[in-house]
Amino acid sequence: MRKGELARKTILKRAVQLGSKVGLSGLTIGRLAEDLGRSKSGVFASFQSKETLQTETLRFAADSFREAVIRPALKAPRGEERVRALFSMWLDWPKYDPLQGGCFFVAAASELDDRPGPLRNLLVELQSGWLDLLARTVRFAVEKGDFHPGVDAEQFAHDMYGVMLAFHHASRLLGDQKAEARARASFEALLRAARASS
Amino acid sequence: MRKGELARKTILKRAVQLGSKVGLSGLTIGRLAEDLGRSKSGVFASFQSKETLQTETLRFAADSFREAVIRPALKAPRGEERVRALFSMWLDWPKYDPLQGGCFFVAAASELDDRPGPLRNLLVELQSGWLDLLARTVRFAVEKGDFHPGVDAEQFAHDMYGVMLAFHHASRLLGDQKAEARARASFEALLRAARASS
Repeated sequence: MRKGELARKTILKRAVQLGSKVGLSGLTIGRLAEDLGRSKSGVFASFQSKETLQTETLRFAADSFREAVIRPALKAPRGEERVRALFSMWLDWPKYDPLQGGCFFVAAASELDDRPGPLRNLLVELQSGWLDLLARTVRFAVEKGDFHPGVDAEQFAHDMYGVMLAFHHASRLLGDQKAEARARASFEALLRAARASS
Repeated sequence: MRKGELARKTILKRAVQLGSKVGLSGLTIGRLAEDLGRSKSGVFASFQSKETLQTETLRFAADSFREAVIRPALKAPRGEERVRALFSMWLDWPKYDPLQGGCFFVAAASELDDRPGPLRNLLVELQSGWLDLLARTVRFAVEKGDFHPGVDAEQFAHDMYGVMLAFHHASRLLGDQKAEARARASFEALLRAARASS
């Protein structure tokens, strides 16, 4: 990795952390420079505008998610096993990722849902892509015979998302010690229903 | 209703709307006064501090929810019927409530989850109370025999919350036309599982 690229990654990691706290729209070149203890002109040289900084930060968080969750899960064989791998790595992601990226996407979703613009469009594109990938993985499980042919793959993906959002809410806001156990129980119930004839 | 109380309610309604947009922590006396086209001293006279304004706004949103969703749903007979009534009024709430309160609570949850303090404590108290009420309603349905004795009422309440969060995400961020139909399908699946012997 070139030195410039490495420096940029270091800045972007910090930008994701800061964005988790102040919101993606609250992320400015000045605020990031202050947080990094660097000159504003130095950070400006890397990103040129607040909009570019925000977009790059969102893309960087999505890349981290791809590397930490999607890429390893796709090594599991197609079928229920891969659906399980995706869920499990997704759930575990915040535990070992210092970016606190789970928080980042949930916060960005509720922050940007009423703010039209390129940043919101990018988030919608990323989240829709993730839901599509989940649905495709569910369809493989149907084709393989792990799930019942009547299973609605998009509905399953939507429900998996709900399980993650409820987990986030219970663990982050309510401090519910059973949050993870509940998320796993919800997911097992989804799998049971998908296996059963409807 | 006394004139002063009515004026206060009018201000609080506007505060909820503004809080939905700028976040509860972004709600200040100055900003609200500007939004209302009133003098800052006038609004200050009603609330004295930013903290009181934010707390009162959150309480007011919770009261609106109680009036619009909980109170009418509790008129349904105990059992599955009441669980359905709660879900249905909850889902319909944003449609007829100009406060856009659903958005308000989801936004507040992701905004306050990493900001310790009295406002966060109040939100946790309100959301825990709501989850407890849902669980109690599920327990009645178990006692009545509508649901299987093995049903975990807290898990059911947690899952209902997930259905609402996924609905919010799909409708508000992704603009998914099927968001409501998906939420209803998810809820029916929860009911089916709760009725079945486990």
